[in-house]
Amino acid sequence: MRHILIIGIGAGNPEHITVQAINALNRADVLFIPTKGAKKAELAEVRRDICARYVTRPDSRTVEFAVPVRRTEGRSYTESVDEWHASIAVTYEELLERELSEGQIGAFLVWGDPMLYDSTIRIVERVRMRGRVPFGFDVIPGITSLQALCASHRIPLNLVGKPVEITTGRQLVESFPEKTATAAVMLDGEQAFHKIEDPEAEIYWGAYLGTPDEIVISGRLDEVKDEILRTRAEARERMGWIMDIYLLRRGADFDD
Amino acid sequence: MRHILIIGIGAGNPEHITVQAINALNRADVLFIPTKGAKKAELAEVRRDICARYVTRPDSRTVEFAVPVRRTEGRSYTESVDEWHASIAVTYEELLERELSEGQIGAFLVWGDPMLYDSTIRIVERVRMRGRVPFGFDVIPGITSLQALCASHRIPLNLVGKPVEITTGRQLVESFPEKTATAAVMLDGEQAFHKIEDPEAEIYWGAYLGTPDEIVISGRLDEVKDEILRTRAEARERMGWIMDIYLLRRGADFDD
Repeated sequence: MRHILIIGIGAGNPEHITVQAINALNRADVLFIPTKGAKKAELAEVRRDICARYVTRPDSRTVEFAVPVRRTEGRSYTESVDEWHASIAVTYEELLERELSEGQIGAFLVWGDPMLYDSTIRIVERVRMRGRVPFGFDVIPGITSLQALCASHRIPLNLVGKPVEITTGRQLVESFPEKTATAAVMLDGEQAFHKIEDPEAEIYWGAYLGTPDEIVISGRLDEVKDEILRTRAEARERMGWIMDIYLLRRGADFDD
Repeated sequence: MRHILIIGIGAGNPEHITVQAINALNRADVLFIPTKGAKKAELAEVRRDICARYVTRPDSRTVEFAVPVRRTEGRSYTESVDEWHASIAVTYEELLERELSEGQIGAFLVWGDPMLYDSTIRIVERVRMRGRVPFGFDVIPGITSLQALCASHRIPLNLVGKPVEITTGRQLVESFPEKTATAAVMLDGEQAFHKIEDPEAEIYWGAYLGTPDEIVISGRLDEVKDEILRTRAEARERMGWIMDIYLLRRGADFDD
């Protein structure tokens, strides 16, 4: 049977990679690399750098493939994502059939950890459910940008014994500060933090985490939100793309 | 100035360690190792194994130290933890003063990631605030048991575009399923999942994750909760200790 390894490669710093991931990269006969377009050239460069540094077996192949584009017009968010995943599943199925022989191992390299706001696992499950190409698969965890954020700010994610919500920009207004005193926000294209009016809220923000371009800003939300917006806009303009994440928090350890 | 590295070493599998953590271990002149008592001998063994495998500089020293015990009688949970941290801070301060010279680097090895339900960062901050021994510090992220759990079950943590709450056993009843449709529960000494009556809830449970003794069970909460309780009790009896974690979930991807 064919086998797939879904490998978390960390948040941007090539040293985020684990020994388990290095060993997995070297078990793979084929490394599948999505081409994401020229804008994120730096990210493609880091991925190549990771392969060059850590893949020591001489006989593995790299196969680049185009990821289908998500269509949004005339569809709800859910429909749009569902249809997109179905389309990626067909792409994956073709890759497995065409590029892997029986008994061979293919690897998908995933930024961060495949468990967190990434759909490789669920798309691979779709391919399995379709049943046309039988295969097994394993998942190898990786350092997420959330972990890189906390490490760079040198803060714990949670207050002592308190819960944390990991959420998206779309959902933030329903969450912070009423529902949770700590919200970690990923995938925020609309800078939802800017709409939050809470004189007690603190923010820990970071972009391009783990890379030489890393920027971090923290402070009272009221006092730094304009600075973050401005810095983010400038960086995005300069780099042509941005990946950022932040933590919103209210209260302190040992508040009851 | 002295410098401290707070290094996440993963959830139990020595291969969880990152290249960044290996490099950090090798920057340290002194590795500080807490002695946690004989019960968790396997964990101490994994920590020794990690140092033996990855520490290649020949001149670093290992310093074992006893962690103060937390007192609970006559105190609220918050008072108890606050007092405990204050006492550990004194221990750390003594270690830094006694075991590190000016300009030397000391490392604290932390299970999982120092950002998640671990207090090394906040205790080190306390020592810094006390101001008696000046030092700088850095944090190096590591793979958490939550990531190991999802990898072993081969599942994403979140449903598509949906939030996740990371919480403790003490807080779970306030959280799931009313407040969140996905709850990841760490530090649950009382098996809070057993009190949840929800015919639609699914559980993904794991113990000793990443180690050769790993056990995972998943299914409808109603159907597997007794099996988990029984398996957990047997394993705890046999091993003398247990570390476990679980995910509770309701609903599916693309539910609206």
